[in-house]
Amino acid sequence: MTAAGTEYARLSLNTMTTKSWTLREAVEGTADAGLPAIGLWRDRVAEVGVDMAAKLVHDNGLRVSSLCRGGFLTGIDNGPAALADNRRAIEEAATLGTSELVLVAGGIPDRDLAGARARLADRIAALAPYAAEHHVRLALEPLHPMFCADRAVISTLGQALELAAPHPADVVGVVVDTFHVWWDPDLASGIAAAGREGRISSYQICDWLVPMTADPLVSRGMMGDGVIDFDAISTLVATAGYDGDVEVEIFNEAVWATEGRAVIETMKRRYSDLVLPAL
Amino acid sequence: MTAAGTEYARLSLNTMTTKSWTLREAVEGTADAGLPAIGLWRDRVAEVGVDMAAKLVHDNGLRVSSLCRGGFLTGIDNGPAALADNRRAIEEAATLGTSELVLVAGGIPDRDLAGARARLADRIAALAPYAAEHHVRLALEPLHPMFCADRAVISTLGQALELAAPHPADVVGVVVDTFHVWWDPDLASGIAAAGREGRISSYQICDWLVPMTADPLVSRGMMGDGVIDFDAISTLVATAGYDGDVEVEIFNEAVWATEGRAVIETMKRRYSDLVLPAL
Repeated sequence: MTAAGTEYARLSLNTMTTKSWTLREAVEGTADAGLPAIGLWRDRVAEVGVDMAAKLVHDNGLRVSSLCRGGFLTGIDNGPAALADNRRAIEEAATLGTSELVLVAGGIPDRDLAGARARLADRIAALAPYAAEHHVRLALEPLHPMFCADRAVISTLGQALELAAPHPADVVGVVVDTFHVWWDPDLASGIAAAGREGRISSYQICDWLVPMTADPLVSRGMMGDGVIDFDAISTLVATAGYDGDVEVEIFNEAVWATEGRAVIETMKRRYSDLVLPAL
Repeated sequence: MTAAGTEYARLSLNTMTTKSWTLREAVEGTADAGLPAIGLWRDRVAEVGVDMAAKLVHDNGLRVSSLCRGGFLTGIDNGPAALADNRRAIEEAATLGTSELVLVAGGIPDRDLAGARARLADRIAALAPYAAEHHVRLALEPLHPMFCADRAVISTLGQALELAAPHPADVVGVVVDTFHVWWDPDLASGIAAAGREGRISSYQICDWLVPMTADPLVSRGMMGDGVIDFDAISTLVATAGYDGDVEVEIFNEAVWATEGRAVIETMKRRYSDLVLPAL
């Protein structure tokens, strides 16, 4: 193994970071950059079909760190359709050879937040046996509370762990994404608990920009361009025992306008400088 | 007392809601609308000076539900100046006859969130005796986590209560503002604890709009225009024993462009429909 191989042995490119790339370009770009892993989005996988995607990843010697995303389980009238779509996502994750299916909970269809959270819990329970059968873990991702209304009613790591608690740790896990959780006063105890329970499905990184962009969804930045202390959070994650992949997932128009290989080079450098020392 | 007097006996206009109004216009508009209370911002008070503001409010038969705002206590180099400004704010609150000085914590000057929170705790402790002397309570306001970087490192009610805990309940309290806390999975227990401890300084209401506006600061809406369940949160606040004023504080360009008296009429109607039944 080369030094570079060692240095980037846990670094994964999430396909959202190089949004302009096709699946093939992302897979080949990741492999060419000497990275061992890639995080896939389902729409990207759908470009070529899941079997061809699995073959592409395998032929390029990569592993799939996670599949994004299932979820959107909070609707009132679309429960069966949402569950069916999540079962397909579980199958896709299995075919792609990843154990981690990231779930974005879904928002509130009306003003009943408690009701939406209750439906979510019920539907996680409905999906868990199917996930277990396929050796796929439902990776509950707390999203920043600013997305609670329209995207994800899971707003903190502690809440994600409560939702996960009724299920085995290898069936329901949680995602630690710096952008979403960095502000949380209970972050240290949440990450420690997630580690203790063996539930950390993924460590995703990107930065929080100041000021925010007009569309908060794309206000994520390259590590080092914002205010997040990656050393502090990475130390918590490492201390909690997580030794899996570190996935860089950036929603940012300027990053998306930059050529993919240049993005990966910046991402490798920032990872080495800001994240790796704490891992 | 008229029926209208009873219906609006706890409703307060925060001057930010009628931003285009001078202090005098806001005071007279509030009194003319039959409301008993007004929440003042310091810049509005400064227009006429604090003594004249106190006289205006008194002459119009109003009480001051809160003074906004002290705080911004997280800076690295400006500690003494920030404390001095907050002491002036305490004096102003006392002169205006309100016991509640709303504190907005301040953001992070660097990437050290834990450090900013520690400075905040120290400076609350430094201000507490002066506040107690003046019979003014430091009302810690958790702001929505999307403001953690640039405005307030207090992000949840639970965290505000932890910061308040070392101090007597009549010296350090907490603000419950629906816009900032509605998403919190621990909201029910936080409000209950705040009530049990006698620390609810203020109940502020406005709605969460979907989608958010480009500037999140002004993405607040009139009650009923967004997704917040005012019945649920007002029930929690009432059950916790809070019987103080309910202050309507809306940052919203469209509301600001509307004539003040029309805004107050809408606000009264929405309060009666959505909030009052739970109180």
